[in-house]
Amino acid sequence: MAAREAGAETASKARGKVTITEIARQAGVSVPTVSRVVNGRSDVSPQTRARVEDLLRRHGYRKRPQAAASHAALLDLVFNDLDSPWAVEIIRGVEEVAHAAGVGTVVSAIHGRSGDAREWMRNLRARASDGVILVTSDLGPVLHEQLRILGVPLVVVDPTGSPDLDTPTIGAANWSGGLAATEHLLSLGHRRIGLIAGPSRLLCSRARFDGYRAALEAAGIALDESLVVPGDFHPESGFTGCNTLLDLPEPPTAVFAASDQMALGAIEALRRRGLRVPEDMSVLGFDDLPEVRWSAPPLTTVRQPLADMGKLAVRTVLRLARDEQPDSPRVELGTELVIRSSTAAPRSQS
Amino acid sequence: MAAREAGAETASKARGKVTITEIARQAGVSVPTVSRVVNGRSDVSPQTRARVEDLLRRHGYRKRPQAAASHAALLDLVFNDLDSPWAVEIIRGVEEVAHAAGVGTVVSAIHGRSGDAREWMRNLRARASDGVILVTSDLGPVLHEQLRILGVPLVVVDPTGSPDLDTPTIGAANWSGGLAATEHLLSLGHRRIGLIAGPSRLLCSRARFDGYRAALEAAGIALDESLVVPGDFHPESGFTGCNTLLDLPEPPTAVFAASDQMALGAIEALRRRGLRVPEDMSVLGFDDLPEVRWSAPPLTTVRQPLADMGKLAVRTVLRLARDEQPDSPRVELGTELVIRSSTAAPRSQS
Repeated sequence: MAAREAGAETASKARGKVTITEIARQAGVSVPTVSRVVNGRSDVSPQTRARVEDLLRRHGYRKRPQAAASHAALLDLVFNDLDSPWAVEIIRGVEEVAHAAGVGTVVSAIHGRSGDAREWMRNLRARASDGVILVTSDLGPVLHEQLRILGVPLVVVDPTGSPDLDTPTIGAANWSGGLAATEHLLSLGHRRIGLIAGPSRLLCSRARFDGYRAALEAAGIALDESLVVPGDFHPESGFTGCNTLLDLPEPPTAVFAASDQMALGAIEALRRRGLRVPEDMSVLGFDDLPEVRWSAPPLTTVRQPLADMGKLAVRTVLRLARDEQPDSPRVELGTELVIRSSTAAPRSQS
Repeated sequence: MAAREAGAETASKARGKVTITEIARQAGVSVPTVSRVVNGRSDVSPQTRARVEDLLRRHGYRKRPQAAASHAALLDLVFNDLDSPWAVEIIRGVEEVAHAAGVGTVVSAIHGRSGDAREWMRNLRARASDGVILVTSDLGPVLHEQLRILGVPLVVVDPTGSPDLDTPTIGAANWSGGLAATEHLLSLGHRRIGLIAGPSRLLCSRARFDGYRAALEAAGIALDESLVVPGDFHPESGFTGCNTLLDLPEPPTAVFAASDQMALGAIEALRRRGLRVPEDMSVLGFDDLPEVRWSAPPLTTVRQPLADMGKLAVRTVLRLARDEQPDSPRVELGTELVIRSSTAAPRSQS
C-alpha cells in the first residue's frame, strides 16, 4: 500500500500533477486544510500555510481547471500604473486579439502597493479569470507563486526588462534597437553622440546602452563616459540630462535618448536655449509612442511593437490555458528604426 | 378578471414595472418566448421578436436584477477605438474607482462596426456585466434599446458631445472652455484670433466655437469667418488648418485649436515655416493630454477632466445598479485654463 502510494506519487510528479490528498498526507493536515490554502482562504494558521505552500511549490502543484466553466471567458491585464504612455498601445493589442477570441479584457492597476495587489488577487479569484498578463515586474514573488498555485496561466509583457521569472515573458529587441539608433547617427556623420540612458537596474536600459557602445566600437570610436548621462525614462530626466550634455566643454552633436519621453524633454531643453532640432543638434528616441509623430519636429525613434507584444501575450496566455507550451519562455519582438525629422548631419562636419 | 389585470397593468406601468406575463398576454405568445427575446436568444422569429420588443419598449420593461448574483462584480467600459488619446485617461479614472469598489473593469473597442457591437453584446450577456460605460455615441439606438431591455445600467462618457440619448451622460463644460481660452488670448493683446474648429456635427465643437465667439463679442470684436477653419480633432487637420490661416492676406496672431492634437499639428506647420511659438504666433489647445506638458513649447490649453469624468461615470453606474437615480441626466464637469509656454503677447502690439 505504501509502495503503491510512493509509486503513484512518482508518476504524478513526473507529470507535474500531485493531488491535494498527497499534499495533505505529507503536510500532516486534512484535505480541506490544503484546499483552503490553495483557494487563498484566510482561516489557516501561518505555520500550516507555509508548510502546505512549500509542499505545493516543491511538487509543482497546479489547481485543475474547472471542467466546462460556466462563466464567460475573461483575462486580466495588469499594469503597475495606468499613466504609462505605453499602456494604451498594449491595451489596444490585447483587446483586439482577446475580443476576436470572445474573451473579455479586465484592466487593472496595482500601483506597486501590496494591498492593491492582494485585493486584485481576491477579485481575480472571484471572477475566475482564465489568464493573467502582467505589464510590470513589480508584482512580488509571493503573488507570482499564488497565481501559479491557482493554476492561472501567466505571461509577462515587459517593455523594460525584468529580473528572471519562471514565467513566459515577451519583450523587445533592445540591444538591436540601441545599435540601429547609434548606427543611424554615425551614418549621418556624427562622432560625438550623447546617450541619455535608462535606469541601470532595468535590463532594457543595459541592452540599449550596450547596443550604443557596440555601434561606436564598430565605428572605431572609444566610449566617452562623459557623454553618457543617467535618466529614468520620464521627460524631466531627458530635460536635465540634455542640459548636462550641453554644459560640457565640448557638447555632443547628437543625443540618443533611451525613451521617447526623455527625447521630448531633451528637445524642450534645446528649445529653451534657442537651439534648433535637427539643425543644431540631432535627437533620437526609443519607443515610437503615437504622440511623437507630431512632436516639433517629428521624432526619429526606435519603434517598440507594443501592440504586437500585447497581441502575442494574449495568444500565449490562451495557449497556456489549453495546456500547450509557449514557443519559448522568453520572446523578443524586433525593434525598428523610424526616421522622421529630428536627425540630420552635424552642423560643421569637419 | 380582465378588469383586475388592466388595473394591475396600470399600476405596474406607473412604476415602470410591467411583468413578462403581461407582455406575453399582449403579444399573444408564451411567457418562455418573451423570456427568449429578453435574453437575446436567437430561436425566435423576427416578426415575433419585433412585436415583443415593441411591447417591451412601450412598457419600459426592465429585466429584474438577479438576486444575490453569484458572479464577481464587473463593469464594461466601451470605446469606439482605443487609439483615442483620451482613452488611457478615462480608463485610469474608471479603474481607480471601480477597483476601490471591488469591481473589475472590462475594456472593449467596437470600432463602430455593428458586427463587433453585436459580438460585444453577446459577451456582455455571458459575463453578466453589472453596468456599462460607453465612451462613444456611435453605439446605435438598437443596442441602446437592447441594453435597456437587459436592465444593465448604462452611462455615456462623452468628451465630444452626442445626440440626445435617454441615458445619463457625463461631459465637460465646452462652452466655458472656449470662452476662457479666447479671453486668455484677448488679455494678452491679441485681436485677430484664428480658430481651428472641431467637426460641426458634434455638440462639443459647437459649444467651443460659441464660447470663442462670445468672448470676441464681449470684447467688441466682430466674428471674422475667414479666421475660422474646419478640423476633425486629429493633428493632420491642425497642420492643414494652420497653413490655411498663415496663407491669409492678414494672418491671425494667435490660433485656438479645439483639440490638443490639432494644436500640435499647428505648431508643426509653424515650425516648418521657420516661425516660432509663441514669439511669432500663440497656439492654444483643448484637452490637456498628458503629452502636451512636453510639447515644444509646452502647450497652453483647456483642461478636460477626463479621469474625473471616468470616476463619476463609475459612481453613476453603481448608483443605477442599486436602483438609485443619478443627480442629473446630464452632468458637465468644469474645464480649466492651463497656462504654459505656447501663448504670449503678439509680436507687434500696435
